[in-house]
Parts: sequence; C-alpha cells; structure tokens
Amino acid sequence: MKVQALERCGSKLRFIDQTALPVRLVQKETDDYLEIIAAIKRLEIRGAPAIGIAAAYALAVAVTQQGAYSTDLLVRLGSEIKAARPTAVNLFWAVDRVLDKMKAHGNVSAIEASRRLWQEAEAIHDEDREMCARIGRHGSELIRDGATVLTHCNTGALATGGIGTALGVIYTCRDQGKRIKVYADETRPLLQGSRLTAWELQQEGIDVTLICDNTAGMLMRQGKIDAVLVGADRIARNGDTANKIGTYSVAVLAKEHGVPFYVAAPSSTFDPGIENGSQIVIEERSAKEVIEGLGTLTAPSDIKVYSPAFDVTPNGYITAHITDQGVKPGGRP
Amino acid sequence: MKVQALERCGSKLRFIDQTALPVRLVQKETDDYLEIIAAIKRLEIRGAPAIGIAAAYALAVAVTQQGAYSTDLLVRLGSEIKAARPTAVNLFWAVDRVLDKMKAHGNVSAIEASRRLWQEAEAIHDEDREMCARIGRHGSELIRDGATVLTHCNTGALATGGIGTALGVIYTCRDQGKRIKVYADETRPLLQGSRLTAWELQQEGIDVTLICDNTAGMLMRQGKIDAVLVGADRIARNGDTANKIGTYSVAVLAKEHGVPFYVAAPSSTFDPGIENGSQIVIEERSAKEVIEGLGTLTAPSDIKVYSPAFDVTPNGYITAHITDQGVKPGGRP
Repeated sequence: MKVQALERCGSKLRFIDQTALPVRLVQKETDDYLEIIAAIKRLEIRGAPAIGIAAAYALAVAVTQQGAYSTDLLVRLGSEIKAARPTAVNLFWAVDRVLDKMKAHGNVSAIEASRRLWQEAEAIHDEDREMCARIGRHGSELIRDGATVLTHCNTGALATGGIGTALGVIYTCRDQGKRIKVYADETRPLLQGSRLTAWELQQEGIDVTLICDNTAGMLMRQGKIDAVLVGADRIARNGDTANKIGTYSVAVLAKEHGVPFYVAAPSSTFDPGIENGSQIVIEERSAKEVIEGLGTLTAPSDIKVYSPAFDVTPNGYITAHITDQGVKPGGRP
Repeated sequence: MKVQALERCGSKLRFIDQTALPVRLVQKETDDYLEIIAAIKRLEIRGAPAIGIAAAYALAVAVTQQGAYSTDLLVRLGSEIKAARPTAVNLFWAVDRVLDKMKAHGNVSAIEASRRLWQEAEAIHDEDREMCARIGRHGSELIRDGATVLTHCNTGALATGGIGTALGVIYTCRDQGKRIKVYADETRPLLQGSRLTAWELQQEGIDVTLICDNTAGMLMRQGKIDAVLVGADRIARNGDTANKIGTYSVAVLAKEHGVPFYVAAPSSTFDPGIENGSQIVIEERSAKEVIEGLGTLTAPSDIKVYSPAFDVTPNGYITAHITDQGVKPGGRP
C-alpha cells in the first residue's frame, strides 16, 4: 500500500492532510499534540478508525513533548483530545482505552510513560490494520477475478489505520492477482467519493471510474456492476445498517437488478444496544454543504434543504455483512 | 406566473439570463439578433422549447434590425441561428417552420416581413404556452390537495414558453388552490435542480425543499413522497422515456416504494421513429462537468469519468405519461 493516513516516525506522527486532496498530496509530520488536535478538528485526519488511532498517538506525542507524566496530566490531555470532535465515538474509545491501561500501571517516570504510550498507540494501530486485513480476506472470497464493483463514500486507507473496509476488500483482491474495476459514487454533498476514494484507488493503481450518485441505476441496468461494496457507521442487532446518505438508494437499485450488496465493517460496528434501524437517530447536516459546499453558491441562499448525514438500509436489502470475524449472510433472499 | 423565460417587448426580446441564477435575477432586453444567438450559445437561454421560441424571435429581431428582407436573407439568418446549438432539435424545428411560412408568402416588403415574423414567433410562443397549460390541467387531476411531489432537473417556466411541463402540473395545482410541497433533486452534474428549479419554485411561492439526488430513496422509505413528476427528452413508441441522468434511479425507487411515477411532456416528445428505449443513443458529457463543474477541482484532474447526459426509464416503471392530449397509462402495474 502506498497510501497511509497515519504513520509513526520516531517520536513524531506523520499524516496525510486530507483537506488538500485531491489537488495536492500534503504529508505533515509533527511532535506537537496540539497540531494533531487541530488536524482532527479541521478534518485533515478523518474516518472513524483513523481518528481513534490519531488520538492515541496524540497522547504519546503530548507526554513525550512535555517530558513530564502523571495520570492526572494524562486525564487532562485526554479531555483536551476528546474535545476535538465530541461526536466521534472512536476518539473517546481510544483515549479511554489508553487511560485505563496507563492507570493500571500507576505513576511511572515520564520516559517509561512515554514508551508505554507509544506502545499502546501502536497496538491500537496494529489491531486496526489487522482488522482491515481480516475484512479484506473474508470479503475477497465473494469477489471474482474480473469483477466490477460499485462503492459509495470513502472506506479505504485514508479512513483507517490499514487498507480500509470496503476498499480493503478491493485491495486484497488486487494483491491476490484479481483484476478488479471500480465505479466510485462521488457521494454528495461532501464528495468523499471523488475527493478521497477516486484519488486513493488511483494511487493504488486500481482501475477506477468516477460517477455522479444518480448514475448507479443506469450502470446496473446495463449489467456493468457485479457487486456493491460499502462500509457502515452503525449496524443494529437485526442487521439494519446506517451508512453515508445514498447507501439505501444504491441497495434498492442493487436488489432490483440482482446485484449482490455487501456491507464491510469491523464487528465492533454492530451495536448490541440497538434492536433495529428505526432506533438509529439520523443526524442532519447544514444546508451550506449542499448549496455552497464547493465554494460557489449553487442554489438560492435561503432555500430549505434536507441533508441527512446517513440513511438506514434494512437488512432485507443486504446480501451479507463482511466483518473481521467472517461473512454473515444478510436478509436479502 | 412571475417567472417568464422569454417575453416580447415591442421590437425587442426580453429574457432571463439563466447563467446568473440562482445568485442574481438578470433580465436582458435586446433588439440585436446576434445577442440572442450569443445567449443561446452561452446557455443564458436554455430548455428545448425556450430555445425554439427564442430562435423564432431572433428571426423577427434580425429582419426588423436590418430593415431589409428577402427569402435568401432569411435563409442565411436561419443558418446562423441554427449554428448556435447544432444539436437542439427545437431550434431547427422553429427556424424551419418560420422559413416555410415566409417562403409561402414570397418576397414581401421589409415592414411586412417584420410584421409577419413577429406574428409567427408569437404564434409559436402561444402554442407552447397553451401546450404547457394543457399538460398542467391533465396532470393536476392526478395530484391531490396536500400532496408532496419529488421532481428532477428543471421542467418549468425557465425551460419553456409557458408554465413548464412537470412543474407546470405543480403550478396548475397551486392555481386550483391545492397545497403542494415539492422536493427538488439538485440534479448532478449541472445542478439544474438547485440552480433553476429551486429558484423558480421559490419565486412562485411553492413550498420547496432541496435534496441531494442520493436522498430520494430515504424520503420515499419514510413515506414522505406521494408522487414523482419528471419531464422527458424523448419517448419511444413503447413508452420508454429518455430524460436527464438520474431519472431511471428515481423511477426504480418509486416502484419499490409504491409511489406513482409520472412523466409530463408535449405529445411531440413521442418519437414515432423509435420503437423502444434501446434505440436511443446516450450522449456522454465531459468529465470536467463532474470534476470541476463548480469552479473547484473535486477529483483528481486525470480521473476517468462516466457522465451520460440522460438515461432511459423503461415504460414498465412509468405509471403514466401526461401530455397535452391527456393522460396515457404507462406500463407499471
């Protein structure tokens, strides 16, 4: 893999500034944890798993930088980091995991704390890398040589610590010698498909074609799509899956045309507290992203806009969930 | 109606410069036919019926302007106007209709020719206005008071000489006192939905909400859409309908959710030379419209793009075609 969202370099964190994509590849290297917080805030680092990993690295960078350590200090630093994106579940999870681990060690020297913090951040990173690899291996069994896959949003190396989830399946197929062709939905309103997925797949030498979201149906009717591969934000106990807005429309189109529809996600995305999709709250995004998201006013400035961040695909439209633990058949006959 | 794409003002043509929308309402008035040609070229005047009407007015403006007349001169002017957009069928149709009419009169004085040319242009405009009104009346019988309608692209007053086709149905309902709510697809890549439809409906006081194209499925699943109303570029003998890219996806979603799917178009849109949709050639648009259509590069500059201008919706997905001649049931059970 050429594309790596995050990488430890000695006592620094190197990361791709994703806000500069697809125009320029900007790699930043920092030994200042405040720069990592700023990068998370400004979406230079994005994607739930990548944010969690960056948060763990930020704790290691911070203690190394300060040359001092106490669990109290670490708790304070953790709160600062959590405030970078208060709705990012992985950020909280990663910070709390590191805190729990370090509290168990008690008060150690700054040098020892720093060593352990880097170790723990790398462990979190490694686990994510391994989880992506497992998803990729399981998913690759479903995709034949020569297949053309449709994907939505960005679920690749830019969003995770490894090869990604849905895109990870494609990279694994590539590494197995399969020739895979990909159609990437541009994914309005924030265009993660054109800005990130198209760029990432191109960097990795995958044959990728960009389409507007509204073109997927026509491609399926023409028989050009062999499978749909998407990620997931949250999966209910019954398999209903919340993912980037537009996923549900693609799932309906896939069913109508007999195209398998696969969701690739870590098993931790299954939320045992949620019985079905109707219990998932839909976050609404700002009108601005739709009417002037690209720097130009493309609609009346005071127009009403409905812009949900994600939609819910009922399990009945899903052929299978691909997780690190294996392939779990969905509810689509 | 407050919105009128075209209007005769004495010996001038007044038109809305649609390239300035939705940011500013710019109305231009000209007695120079070269300015009308330039406006058609620059898409300041757009929409198949509106282009045809503007072409007829351009001939009247030209002869009035030159103060001289012969059928040879008119043929030369007609060729100049036809070259403005060589693929616009309505433009050719309108110019040829005027030429045939004037040739039948033989060589008349410049003043007489000018009078007849304005008369013929107004006749073409009036017929289009009347045709829109008929479509509106027939379509309005299918839409109940309180209904919420989804539409795609722009099919309103900005595209025609009257109230439009699909949007004309909505204006007719409004004039009948029905309360109609509209969701407008933004319609990538050229955003006619956000730039034109949202603006036009807002001007006309219709309750309109803008959505990204990929949100239609979710809205239908939530039971928020009572009917879909779209226009048509060309309709085959069997009812298969070519329209703006994305129409087919909406039709599949409508069928899946039991939402009626109506196509509103002049009966002249039925092409007797085409048996079914497979014979309709799909024009591909430039990658630029997708990757930097909004002034900002939103994908790698050398990425492959598939951007068809329209798609074909088989008659089996269409509840009915609404034309000036009445409502014709489609093939959807």
